[in-house]
Amino acid sequence: MASEFDLIARYFTRTAPAGLLGVGDDCALFPVPPGEQVATSTDLLLEGRHFFPDVDPKALGHKALAVNLSDLAAMGARPIGCVLGLALPRLDEPWLAAFAEGFHALAAAHGCPLIGGDTTRSAHDLAISVTVFGAVPPGQALRRDGAEAGDDIWVSGELGAADVAYRLLDGQYPADASLLAATRGALEWPQPQVALGLALRGIATAAIDLSDGLLQDLGHILAASRLGACLRFADLPAAASVAGLADAPLRRALLGGGDVYQLCFTAPVARREAVAAAAQAAGARVTRVGQTQADAGLSVLDPRGQPMAALPAGFDHFPAA
Amino acid sequence: MASEFDLIARYFTRTAPAGLLGVGDDCALFPVPPGEQVATSTDLLLEGRHFFPDVDPKALGHKALAVNLSDLAAMGARPIGCVLGLALPRLDEPWLAAFAEGFHALAAAHGCPLIGGDTTRSAHDLAISVTVFGAVPPGQALRRDGAEAGDDIWVSGELGAADVAYRLLDGQYPADASLLAATRGALEWPQPQVALGLALRGIATAAIDLSDGLLQDLGHILAASRLGACLRFADLPAAASVAGLADAPLRRALLGGGDVYQLCFTAPVARREAVAAAAQAAGARVTRVGQTQADAGLSVLDPRGQPMAALPAGFDHFPAA
Repeated sequence: MASEFDLIARYFTRTAPAGLLGVGDDCALFPVPPGEQVATSTDLLLEGRHFFPDVDPKALGHKALAVNLSDLAAMGARPIGCVLGLALPRLDEPWLAAFAEGFHALAAAHGCPLIGGDTTRSAHDLAISVTVFGAVPPGQALRRDGAEAGDDIWVSGELGAADVAYRLLDGQYPADASLLAATRGALEWPQPQVALGLALRGIATAAIDLSDGLLQDLGHILAASRLGACLRFADLPAAASVAGLADAPLRRALLGGGDVYQLCFTAPVARREAVAAAAQAAGARVTRVGQTQADAGLSVLDPRGQPMAALPAGFDHFPAA
Repeated sequence: MASEFDLIARYFTRTAPAGLLGVGDDCALFPVPPGEQVATSTDLLLEGRHFFPDVDPKALGHKALAVNLSDLAAMGARPIGCVLGLALPRLDEPWLAAFAEGFHALAAAHGCPLIGGDTTRSAHDLAISVTVFGAVPPGQALRRDGAEAGDDIWVSGELGAADVAYRLLDGQYPADASLLAATRGALEWPQPQVALGLALRGIATAAIDLSDGLLQDLGHILAASRLGACLRFADLPAAASVAGLADAPLRRALLGGGDVYQLCFTAPVARREAVAAAAQAAGARVTRVGQTQADAGLSVLDPRGQPMAALPAGFDHFPAA
């Protein structure tokens, strides 16, 4: 059986790119482009809460980094590197090899090498902490508090599939193998919108990713920017795989469904062409779904232009008792 | 009961210092001094493995940050800020308030504000991930691979108390209230040697902290620098509280005892006065305990100058089966 140090060396030590000091000292070291700031985000993922115990470890390695890269994307920051903490209930080498493969592949795709980490044994559950670092010039970060009344509200990609896959796997929806096959990729292999975030610098007035669902995450932009908003339900970019759902699960998936690593952002009406050009340059689909307004409150209009009632709540790890 | 967002706001949102964007966006932002690199370290601490379930939460908040600040100290980096991930099995507000108090007090003492985080609910155990950021000019970091043959080996502070406190609390040693009272502070309230690390820039040739114990951590310097070493057991700075122990537990405590957030560092013989001046400026005690050598291997000489046998092993989270 390998020791902790062998284990770290085997799966998590890569030759650090020039200028970076990687795994194997008290700290990792990285340079920052002159004049830029560092953007950082951290996530702690737990078995049974953020992923199912039997999830494909390669997908898990991918997703553990993807959710953090998505935070850099939502800030308009260019990835620099990341560190990983792993608490493992047992030493399962094939599992680790697959996890590392998924993690390193996404890291390489986004120029975000693993430069440090901590491996430990856990008593019960698997826990994964990832912290990413990126760079952004001062004043160019896509913050939550910059939206203006009358801005368009945009969403990238498609919505709804991750929520449906989660509820199928969790047994909340009756088993449906073909629906699961059509939605599972969105849940397990999210693609962080890093290129889009970079392209939206200087265009978007505010941005966030949809990790907690559209209503809740847009709500964060509105609260930080002291605005309200109106969304048009019919304009939401539903994934083809969920378009056939009944009303209630469809609303839940599109408005409340979290674990979506797409961006929700605002931009002035006058910048519609710039948004379209940025999306094209980034290879991303973007859809206008509503407007911000000076009046507080968030309403969603149904296809007849009437406000929808009984909107789904956002996700909260500690729901009110 | 408070929601996740209330909870984060209440205990972990502080007004970020000027120039930093703190908790409450997709990423935290921080500037880096012009021309300097970022040093970063991450640790994942688990209940039952890194701390006892009934530990004073204020001490735990202190220590969760201290172990990471110690990595910055061992690199000679100046703290900038930190992020915190917390997985909580339940929402216990007095516990959280005390944890936050211990964490923020140490953060303030070292100019290392909490700028981001992630709070989630865990199924079983409490898990804490902390990532710290610091700054160091290129080429001035105290790495592990810079020691030269013939360098002095130095240790800061005192050794042994944390190991004894741990074994008393773990039931490995018979209950001894006065010994526990004398040693417990070293285990639960470690003081990271940040000022000493900064003062040793340009003087120490290599440095590491003693989180895994003197033999193992010095072993990392020797492996990275391709050297051997000889330590003088009688010169090790034993804490007064452990000086009366029998031979075996004393060796174990001084040579193998981890969880010591003091520095072990090397420096040329010609820089002894510079080391002493740096330690005085930092308010730290430092002790010369041996010498590096070109020949591989690490030996410890007893007071008669004979190599000690049966040296304690270092700590490994995944010991060989």
